[in-house]
Amino acid sequence: MKKITTAAWLLATTTFMLATALHAETPADKPAKTVHGEYKDWLTLSVSHRLDKHLVRSVLGNDIAIKAARAGKTKPWPDGTIFAKVGWKERTHPNWPQAVVPGEFAGAEAMVKDSKKFAETGGWGFGHWEGDKLVMNDKEKSATCFACHTPMKDNDYVYTVPVLQ
Amino acid sequence: MKKITTAAWLLATTTFMLATALHAETPADKPAKTVHGEYKDWLTLSVSHRLDKHLVRSVLGNDIAIKAARAGKTKPWPDGTIFAKVGWKERTHPNWPQAVVPGEFAGAEAMVKDSKKFAETGGWGFGHWEGDKLVMNDKEKSATCFACHTPMKDNDYVYTVPVLQ
Repeated sequence: MKKITTAAWLLATTTFMLATALHAETPADKPAKTVHGEYKDWLTLSVSHRLDKHLVRSVLGNDIAIKAARAGKTKPWPDGTIFAKVGWKERTHPNWPQAVVPGEFAGAEAMVKDSKKFAETGGWGFGHWEGDKLVMNDKEKSATCFACHTPMKDNDYVYTVPVLQ
Repeated sequence: MKKITTAAWLLATTTFMLATALHAETPADKPAKTVHGEYKDWLTLSVSHRLDKHLVRSVLGNDIAIKAARAGKTKPWPDGTIFAKVGWKERTHPNWPQAVVPGEFAGAEAMVKDSKKFAETGGWGFGHWEGDKLVMNDKEKSATCFACHTPMKDNDYVYTVPVLQ
């Protein structure tokens, strides 16, 4: 019985050491494959690190948004503009402790400009992607989103400053 | 004389208050317009916040890189792959203190895969953009860049884990 216990202990220890060694050599905790929406084909407007929510984010824009950003015509952003604010949980790179990089996918939020349809919330509709489907929030939730954007009224309610055009 | 001094003081105070009010309402310290390279039309592979260099970064890939990332064929990355690691000085958003966002543009670095041409440095050439021109580093500087990437040998010398494909 003792021999079996020792063998089991040795096996467990070896497995643990092997797993640790593998972990040190490869980014083994690479985030799982995620189904993204159409924003995966969109260009970058900016990036951010949200210290409050512990997220790193990429802010992408559809063609209308990128064209407007490049032309400097963002006050207001034109109807048809969509932003995708794609977030991942922050994590320390397993092989590079000075870098905070994306961990698990945390979700993608949308801002959709339609000055008539969303007139009550500054012309912006708020939504999020569920897998590859863009789902708009109901009025109540949109009002909550909009409340956080009101300090940016003079910037068409947008916090993001385009930096890659 | 006293009247003039009082008037000057009032003017200075009013100007300061006006400037403060304007600053509170608009992102007045918006980064200056930057001339970017061809990477401005490339899609995102990942983002990072480099705590050591106080940079936020967007890591972009050319078409060959994105196609390889989507197909999961990144060990090794195919010849013709180019990454653009675009960095901005970190800054606190002037209207949103919980967010670290891009400040002044700090530069864009390149990794170019050519397994024959850059055989001495793991198949990777290292460079950077000067305005819209990609300039490859000389052998000595490339060797320095490569040295930092050797811990990632089992990941084709690449730290970035694609997260948006």
